[in-house]
Amino acid sequence: MRVSINTITPDTPSAEVIGWAHEIRDLGGLAFLLIRDRTGILQVTIPKKKVAPEIAETIRAISRESVVRVRGIIKPEGKAPGGRELIPDLIEIVSLSASPLPLDVAEKVPAELDTRLDNRFLDARRPRVSAIFKIRNAVQHATRNFFFDNGFIEINTSKIVAAATEGGTELFPIAYFEKEAFLNQSPQLYKQMMMAAGFEKVYEIGPIFRAEEHNTTKHLNEATSIDIEVSFTDHIGVMQILEDLVRDIYQFVDKTCSDAIADMDLDTFAVPEKGFPRLPYAEAIEIAASKCEEDITYGDDIGTAAEKAIGEEMGRMYFIVDWPSSIRPYYAMPYENDPEICKAFDMMHPRMELSSGAQRVHQYDLLVDQIAKKGLNPENFEFYLNPFRFGMPPHAGWGLGAERMVTTMLGLPNVREAVLFPRDRHRVVP
Amino acid sequence: MRVSINTITPDTPSAEVIGWAHEIRDLGGLAFLLIRDRTGILQVTIPKKKVAPEIAETIRAISRESVVRVRGIIKPEGKAPGGRELIPDLIEIVSLSASPLPLDVAEKVPAELDTRLDNRFLDARRPRVSAIFKIRNAVQHATRNFFFDNGFIEINTSKIVAAATEGGTELFPIAYFEKEAFLNQSPQLYKQMMMAAGFEKVYEIGPIFRAEEHNTTKHLNEATSIDIEVSFTDHIGVMQILEDLVRDIYQFVDKTCSDAIADMDLDTFAVPEKGFPRLPYAEAIEIAASKCEEDITYGDDIGTAAEKAIGEEMGRMYFIVDWPSSIRPYYAMPYENDPEICKAFDMMHPRMELSSGAQRVHQYDLLVDQIAKKGLNPENFEFYLNPFRFGMPPHAGWGLGAERMVTTMLGLPNVREAVLFPRDRHRVVP
Repeated sequence: MRVSINTITPDTPSAEVIGWAHEIRDLGGLAFLLIRDRTGILQVTIPKKKVAPEIAETIRAISRESVVRVRGIIKPEGKAPGGRELIPDLIEIVSLSASPLPLDVAEKVPAELDTRLDNRFLDARRPRVSAIFKIRNAVQHATRNFFFDNGFIEINTSKIVAAATEGGTELFPIAYFEKEAFLNQSPQLYKQMMMAAGFEKVYEIGPIFRAEEHNTTKHLNEATSIDIEVSFTDHIGVMQILEDLVRDIYQFVDKTCSDAIADMDLDTFAVPEKGFPRLPYAEAIEIAASKCEEDITYGDDIGTAAEKAIGEEMGRMYFIVDWPSSIRPYYAMPYENDPEICKAFDMMHPRMELSSGAQRVHQYDLLVDQIAKKGLNPENFEFYLNPFRFGMPPHAGWGLGAERMVTTMLGLPNVREAVLFPRDRHRVVP
Repeated sequence: MRVSINTITPDTPSAEVIGWAHEIRDLGGLAFLLIRDRTGILQVTIPKKKVAPEIAETIRAISRESVVRVRGIIKPEGKAPGGRELIPDLIEIVSLSASPLPLDVAEKVPAELDTRLDNRFLDARRPRVSAIFKIRNAVQHATRNFFFDNGFIEINTSKIVAAATEGGTELFPIAYFEKEAFLNQSPQLYKQMMMAAGFEKVYEIGPIFRAEEHNTTKHLNEATSIDIEVSFTDHIGVMQILEDLVRDIYQFVDKTCSDAIADMDLDTFAVPEKGFPRLPYAEAIEIAASKCEEDITYGDDIGTAAEKAIGEEMGRMYFIVDWPSSIRPYYAMPYENDPEICKAFDMMHPRMELSSGAQRVHQYDLLVDQIAKKGLNPENFEFYLNPFRFGMPPHAGWGLGAERMVTTMLGLPNVREAVLFPRDRHRVVP
């Protein structure tokens, strides 16, 4: 009966494992096979004169990254990974690998990101890469448990839609039978409709699609968005939920992913402290203007250079609040006493923006007015606007980028590393 | 401080609630307001002479389905829902609803499914409709916990792809920058690649897209698929996982959704018994042939009439196994001793198919051969085939339709009822 490699200790009497031939060293009378499964690496030691001749023969036939089954007795061995080795009485090739490999799984030869993504099935065999996806698994599990425990209802909204969320042009068109349709940029309008339906607290984790042409280390054309919407609360309420969630995720990863964190040599991992500072946009812009070479003034979007400058100044996760209404979407609620600014926020990691949210406009007339002010035609938003006429409660929400969360948590240089099969302008395969 | 309506008992001294005006009855000296939130209904009783005049005035201004805030003392009242009523000292209109409503939320007037879906934000205010989505939430939560607890890694694979899973024509084309791309029909090829990556057990819950033209009560053009793939096992192994999961989901719903089950008057709900029978395809076809008017012979697909006839005969959830290789996809593993049949299965509810799976072909040469035999060009599957050359382990898996699971569990007449915003040939809005 096969066991996972990480369950084998120096005291285990015997074991059978199935895994990949990570490394093979044949020193003549003595051969070593490192066998790898998703939990770890085991040294198989073959003293050729002491094992059956067919074992020595099989060892010669194994190519690197073949799938092999090995059975034998375990002995303590201080120099081997995990302090133990296996002396085989059976070795069987389950699935022979071709040679040469398009990518060196044992990581002796570094590979470019493009080569790695082209050969993701090999790249993800590397412990430091599979660790990213084990941690991503934990991040999403912690997220859903947080929502379930707090009474949120998971929704699954359609990705094929007839209208753009923000009326923008950054949409992928689909040929949908006889109709024109698009891939959804955000579940924004749908989660708001669920507030009209009285669901009160909803969340969705799903793909979003943006036909943006830029090619950076923080943008994806298909990404995973963690979205919430909550009724009878405001931006302050959902900022607190966001901070609590982010800390909860880090704590869960800290508690459950120590092996993966070790595989990544991640000495920078730390649970963020409570009380993310709330920096007004006006002050953020001042910091950026004083630290950046480019000309930055009130009313500008916060670009990459500004984001970096402010992040360095803040040195931790923080919120930017009180944004000018002119640079936020129509659905952001203006302050009653100063409608030039609105109840929107961004949640920032020092490296980049992670989340964007706001209290939403729930008043039909104000919403129509704000749509028109943005130069959009309210008639195109009929399916969205209709619910606001029949008892829409006050509500607020945000969207959090799952890949950016993982990228910043693990200090990955490129957001593509947090996605198994990333999509960018030039990449739709594999 | 607002409380949820279901937390108010006849012994609660006082309460403040926010919700929707479900019904308003003004009998002159006495008025009744039923206020509804997502947890239940509370009767507000207004003896006009005993309350402040502005309360009587506000009551007259409230239209049905407006959002209102009510505060007051609670009294036992046997004739009211939950055995208690609220005598208000404050009533405030938070969000006034227009009249008339496009749909009667109090369900006195039945509505057609199309009207309901056009006005989903009102339809889903009905307790018997929101109950479906509370249960769906529980189904997905139980599913993910089952996988997490059993060591599966959640994967998120791209929905924008360059090739069809089964080479079919039922694809939605996307204009993806300068390239041709499609919406993915299934994560099949990607989850198999993750077996090549050594992830061993993966799952994904995500949207799948099928450009099928038929319009039935069990098909959707955008659906949610629960997918798994497991290495070092066969079809028997993953059939057991599927049966265990399905029973686990039912048990979790049974344990956690009693209110929602009551809201739906669901007296048919029952956890399926262990040991789903495994009916060979050849026997299934015999049953269908003997019970159906149409001509059904070995080698045919199992259509709606056959599915119904066999389901009636079986009377419970069951598997159909040992399918002819000719009617299963190229990736289904043929039996070694009889390659005319293969290690594929369908998991059936008496009403319809819920899941389809198989042990997969993991041998490169056999796979190329099977692709060619289906009349497809192996060159178009290069990105998928490549991993099979470099140490692909034996593996098996299945896909389970989330909406069909909910539809059959709750006895819904149409699968569209299990989707908030269903997509079919004629529906892309809302």
